Amino acid sequence: MGFSKVVRFKEEKRSRIVLALDPIGIAHEKVIEWSYKILKELEGIVSGVKIGLPLILRVGLNHVGNIIDEFKDSYFWIADLKLADVAHILTDIAEMLHNIGFDAVISHLFTGREGSLNELSEKCKELDLGLLGVLVMSHKGANDLFSKTYEDLLSIALDVDVDGFILPATMPFYIRRTREVIGWSKIIFAPGVGAQGASPGDAIRNGADFEIIGRAITFSENPKITTLKIAKIHEEVLGSCTGK
Amino acid sequence: MGFSKVVRFKEEKRSRIVLALDPIGIAHEKVIEWSYKILKELEGIVSGVKIGLPLILRVGLNHVGNIIDEFKDSYFWIADLKLADVAHILTDIAEMLHNIGFDAVISHLFTGREGSLNELSEKCKELDLGLLGVLVMSHKGANDLFSKTYEDLLSIALDVDVDGFILPATMPFYIRRTREVIGWSKIIFAPGVGAQGASPGDAIRNGADFEIIGRAITFSENPKITTLKIAKIHEEVLGSCTGK
Repeated sequence: MGFSKVVRFKEEKRSRIVLALDPIGIAHEKVIEWSYKILKELEGIVSGVKIGLPLILRVGLNHVGNIIDEFKDSYFWIADLKLADVAHILTDIAEMLHNIGFDAVISHLFTGREGSLNELSEKCKELDLGLLGVLVMSHKGANDLFSKTYEDLLSIALDVDVDGFILPATMPFYIRRTREVIGWSKIIFAPGVGAQGASPGDAIRNGADFEIIGRAITFSENPKITTLKIAKIHEEVLGSCTGK
Repeated sequence: MGFSKVVRFKEEKRSRIVLALDPIGIAHEKVIEWSYKILKELEGIVSGVKIGLPLILRVGLNHVGNIIDEFKDSYFWIADLKLADVAHILTDIAEMLHNIGFDAVISHLFTGREGSLNELSEKCKELDLGLLGVLVMSHKGANDLFSKTYEDLLSIALDVDVDGFILPATMPFYIRRTREVIGWSKIIFAPGVGAQGASPGDAIRNGADFEIIGRAITFSENPKITTLKIAKIHEEVLGSCTGK
């Protein structure tokens, strides 16, 4: 299946929400139960789930694989390990993540082409595993360097032919700027909504395909109601946009 | 104990070799056995062990903790997850890695200060967990961007007060340049020896404290003999240097 599921979910006009499932602060023995509960509650409302090291290190890759299996068709699955390494490590990790059911992986772009992203991209294509490149991050410190390296990172991303981009909901001008260059052929995911300061809809309005939302949903009093509210905002934003 | 162990091992003039323990290509059910075998063989010869996602994802964090426990005093333990994320994820991961016994973590510097490395550094100091920043990587593609961002990354690293640097054995001028700026107050680790092209001793000769060597040892016919040969080269290099 792989990355085509992401494209299909978008075309089927499912919600534009990707849930960041980070069990930070959850008692160790409750992490799996907590994950299943949220995933059951948000089935049919959220399109994708982003899983990173906070969950993987707590429960192990096999358990993450079981979680994905249980909800395989309900979500697309993004592994967010913020990969940034040399080729033989990257391809090894990508293969493991693909084997347990992930549809896409998030990688940094600053490691460059030869001996890193060239080989990762080749491996992802071989596996039909989506490759999403981090163009600009969403926190304040991203201004220290990402603001200077935008053009270089975009050029690397286009050369290695990523399937999509990670761009900050907190700095929507980067989303607009990137969309102008890449057209609608690649998917844009925007983290930074909620806890990091952007409002739901900000990124979609500026050209993102999906907003990545974590703590604002998972630690809200009622995750389902919160998510439905956000989905409603997204629908309104999309209704007033060009229809894309 | 934490990072002080690294400094102590250097002062005790133990070997300048850090083993990169990446079980890539090893049959899944043999990974733990393979790890113990190598660690037993190299006890007393190698000073540190660098563990990354290839091992962690295969056996899980608890098993990695067991391995560290078994060889706790024989090596210093570096977690190489090439961290590059926002603050709440970084501090969460650092805490888990510390809890299972790691003495230091490797982080990229690219993510900048506020909302990322400031908070990670603070957490590491609180835990007495060493923080090692990647200044330049060792593969060819590092020239795409790291060559342009050297000054910025160094300035970020000094601002957040890392304990040491990762610099490429494959491009020793970066090691010399950095040593000139930082003096001998911080530790320099150099990957890229062996499979990636640098010769043993190249990085030490240019001012590195430790060379990180993986496949050239782990996949050699006799890891122990290979390591002893490398240690011998290091001794010769250090004998002909200033004595640092």
